Amino acid sequence: MEAKLQELKKRLIEVNDLHASAALLYWDQSTYMPSGGAEARGRQLSTLSEIAHQKFTDDAIGKLLDDLRPYEESLPYDSDEASLIRVARRDYEHAVKMPASFVAEFSSHISLSYNAWTRARPDNDFASVLPYLEKTLELSRRKADFFPGYAHIADPLIADSDYGMEVASIRELFRGLREQLVPLVHQITDQPPADDSCLQQHYPVDQQIAFGLDVIKRLGYDFERGRQDMTHHPFMTKFSLGDVRITTRFKEDDLREALFSTIHESGHAMYEQGIRMDFEGTPIARGATSGVHESQSRLWENLVGRSRGFWQFFYPKLQATFPQQLGDVSLDAFYRAINKVERSLIRTDADEVTYNLHVIMRFDFELDLLEGRLAVRDLPDAWRERFTSDIGITPTDDRDGVLQDMHWYSDAIGGQFQGYTLGNIMSAQLMDAAVKANPAIPSEIQSGEFATLHGWLKENLYQHGAKFTASELMERVTGGALSTEPYVRYLRSKYGELYQF
Amino acid sequence: MEAKLQELKKRLIEVNDLHASAALLYWDQSTYMPSGGAEARGRQLSTLSEIAHQKFTDDAIGKLLDDLRPYEESLPYDSDEASLIRVARRDYEHAVKMPASFVAEFSSHISLSYNAWTRARPDNDFASVLPYLEKTLELSRRKADFFPGYAHIADPLIADSDYGMEVASIRELFRGLREQLVPLVHQITDQPPADDSCLQQHYPVDQQIAFGLDVIKRLGYDFERGRQDMTHHPFMTKFSLGDVRITTRFKEDDLREALFSTIHESGHAMYEQGIRMDFEGTPIARGATSGVHESQSRLWENLVGRSRGFWQFFYPKLQATFPQQLGDVSLDAFYRAINKVERSLIRTDADEVTYNLHVIMRFDFELDLLEGRLAVRDLPDAWRERFTSDIGITPTDDRDGVLQDMHWYSDAIGGQFQGYTLGNIMSAQLMDAAVKANPAIPSEIQSGEFATLHGWLKENLYQHGAKFTASELMERVTGGALSTEPYVRYLRSKYGELYQF
Repeated sequence: MEAKLQELKKRLIEVNDLHASAALLYWDQSTYMPSGGAEARGRQLSTLSEIAHQKFTDDAIGKLLDDLRPYEESLPYDSDEASLIRVARRDYEHAVKMPASFVAEFSSHISLSYNAWTRARPDNDFASVLPYLEKTLELSRRKADFFPGYAHIADPLIADSDYGMEVASIRELFRGLREQLVPLVHQITDQPPADDSCLQQHYPVDQQIAFGLDVIKRLGYDFERGRQDMTHHPFMTKFSLGDVRITTRFKEDDLREALFSTIHESGHAMYEQGIRMDFEGTPIARGATSGVHESQSRLWENLVGRSRGFWQFFYPKLQATFPQQLGDVSLDAFYRAINKVERSLIRTDADEVTYNLHVIMRFDFELDLLEGRLAVRDLPDAWRERFTSDIGITPTDDRDGVLQDMHWYSDAIGGQFQGYTLGNIMSAQLMDAAVKANPAIPSEIQSGEFATLHGWLKENLYQHGAKFTASELMERVTGGALSTEPYVRYLRSKYGELYQF
Repeated sequence: MEAKLQELKKRLIEVNDLHASAALLYWDQSTYMPSGGAEARGRQLSTLSEIAHQKFTDDAIGKLLDDLRPYEESLPYDSDEASLIRVARRDYEHAVKMPASFVAEFSSHISLSYNAWTRARPDNDFASVLPYLEKTLELSRRKADFFPGYAHIADPLIADSDYGMEVASIRELFRGLREQLVPLVHQITDQPPADDSCLQQHYPVDQQIAFGLDVIKRLGYDFERGRQDMTHHPFMTKFSLGDVRITTRFKEDDLREALFSTIHESGHAMYEQGIRMDFEGTPIARGATSGVHESQSRLWENLVGRSRGFWQFFYPKLQATFPQQLGDVSLDAFYRAINKVERSLIRTDADEVTYNLHVIMRFDFELDLLEGRLAVRDLPDAWRERFTSDIGITPTDDRDGVLQDMHWYSDAIGGQFQGYTLGNIMSAQLMDAAVKANPAIPSEIQSGEFATLHGWLKENLYQHGAKFTASELMERVTGGALSTEPYVRYLRSKYGELYQF
């Protein structure tokens, strides 16, 4: 059995190395590649993915997984070996259930669809993507049907990124959250808006970047095992547990852009850097789910990085970096500015309070579309209606409405958005549990000390990689299920103080 | 046949994509990778090479090459299709003739040997590498024996990098060259040395790099299909014909380091950038041989970049960039400084005149070792003796003697050095032919115009990639064989003027 497990690991690491190489090709494409490299780079990325797919779906891996089943069952569920075999089997079954011809059809359709979207968005032309989106919906349904036995047609699509979560429970969670958020948004936005003009001055880019790097170094991002570069869209990527990189972007006239994207991506990266090094190269050497990943980017970005205590420590340093811009701005005014709540059109620019309403409506639309209760051609109208009722303003065009996110134009309809809000929900549960275990954390944050919080997260969450599902992790950490209560309490307390209600 | 050729191309491009990905992993390792990534990166590089080797040595490729032989023979030798099949077959036979077990033994020995050398060189400890080097010699002989039918045991090793060249002809060429160079070196170095102190001032790195980039942009290096980064050892690397990158290094107290390495690597890169784009991904989309490649780096670095005409154009710009350092230094003094000839110990720092003597002695030692006329343990003494007689000074230790180059400690003994001097020889033949065809080239260089020279090289050399061997290329371009006459004439004329003889 030991020999079979070694053989399985060897094959899985080979597949991992191909994916890691592809990740580096993608990183280079986004950071340093000259434009002339684009055409061959696309081909090289396909070559690596195809070989990785062939090698992973090799019958020999299926056979090893079958042979190892009794061994797995003889081990505790949470042992490293059983977890490795279990997660590898889950990935394997996912990879072999879809026929290669379908994968090819899906991917060539998506490439057309994405191209159409890049033209349609600036032109505000939903009609031109409509046929693509209709085809995507049909393909998404077919994709789900390769995984029969689901309770809801979206379940297999959700399992792609949030394995273990299902429509039934997510819908319940999100409904409860929405019921709390809609009145909260109205309560806040009926008041005069916060003044964020102090953030919209000229901030030289080099100092912005240096300040952000100093912040995440203190949070615990390990620069011996990572680095930051500039890209058009910020992201985190991993080539091994010893090399977990982030990217950021900046606006010279808005201090928020680089700073909070840097903290956000460092949250993702610290999660990956915290995984046990002896998992390197195996399928458990990754974050558990997209929701759990997002819980870490949002915990560090918002619960830590947008907190008053955090800025009690960092604001004097920020003022020293930008004396002309912030010398006369009080900590309180700065804190209000970075936590400005407003009715706005774009999800990725939205504040903490409105953000989840943007997500939940997209999640609901995915279900409506998949269930056939909403036709693709009616999506723009449905979008305007729901947006008006939830957020309180009406998008004037599709560019900043249904065309704003690339997700549905570059992947399936279904499973694209729930992770963002699941992450927010979990971030508050995890922070609660961390503070309960270590009541000194809030005062440590005020002193620029993050080792206790980081250590607790590493011990309870990061080190396990993908051994457990999101629900299993929450159960282990909080002793209970996912709950929106800590998150709503966090928002009410923070914004109640800011907006005096 | 068309279908078989397409199938062959498809398989060859897949192998190419794996090698190109490995090249990117290596580039990243040398430029931006954090230290924590090293361990996994080594494993990933092995994974990619192994898969590339497996895919390339697949029997299916051998079968396709056999099936395509009549088709190839029906086509003109210099047609793209016949050349592609011919070069692919040559590579294939090279790859399949060595058993995998030997390749593994060789590579694991080399990895130990290289590690031993990295410690031995600073410690000046030849004794500690002696057993490794003896084993390397034995493995080099065994490697040659996988390619029976050679005239000289070094021939198969030379064919690795300089296909088409053999000991018999190289030895003859080098002997003639050495007979000319030894007295030339003595004639020059008996005179008072040139004053190069103007180059050894403080030169801020950013301005050095910017100046170098401006130079190679004018030479014709295409930044849409390339870029320059910093590394410990400068190199050129290619991920596709649309992405050919170079690296450089700098010394803040020596202007030569960055400038001439930038021009040198841009010469390699312009060669690759000039290959016909429709060869992309195939085995002919590369430089012909290591000698031909070196002819281009040296042509641009020395025949152009160390010429008086070149600096007639660039020196005023260099003075404007570094007015404090060079404002009072005349063009003539600068030109003498960058062409200083001296008896020195290190090959890579040697001037144009002495350089080939460093190379030729290494080439001769490789033959002596392989033929058994010299024992590895006697190499340090032989080195000192030959060095004294050829260059006129005696190395005081092995650190700057037999331990200076990594080649024999990181690869076979045999075939490692001839390319450097073959390149110098060819660079002068090619320059002669270019000027004969376009007599305006020297005056264009004085005006900072390089399009005619670059265009001629592209037309006659670059575009063909690896379709022809070095001898075939020289025959096509100059109508004759390799000859040292133009190179010796070039040195005599340039240094005769500089040293008045």
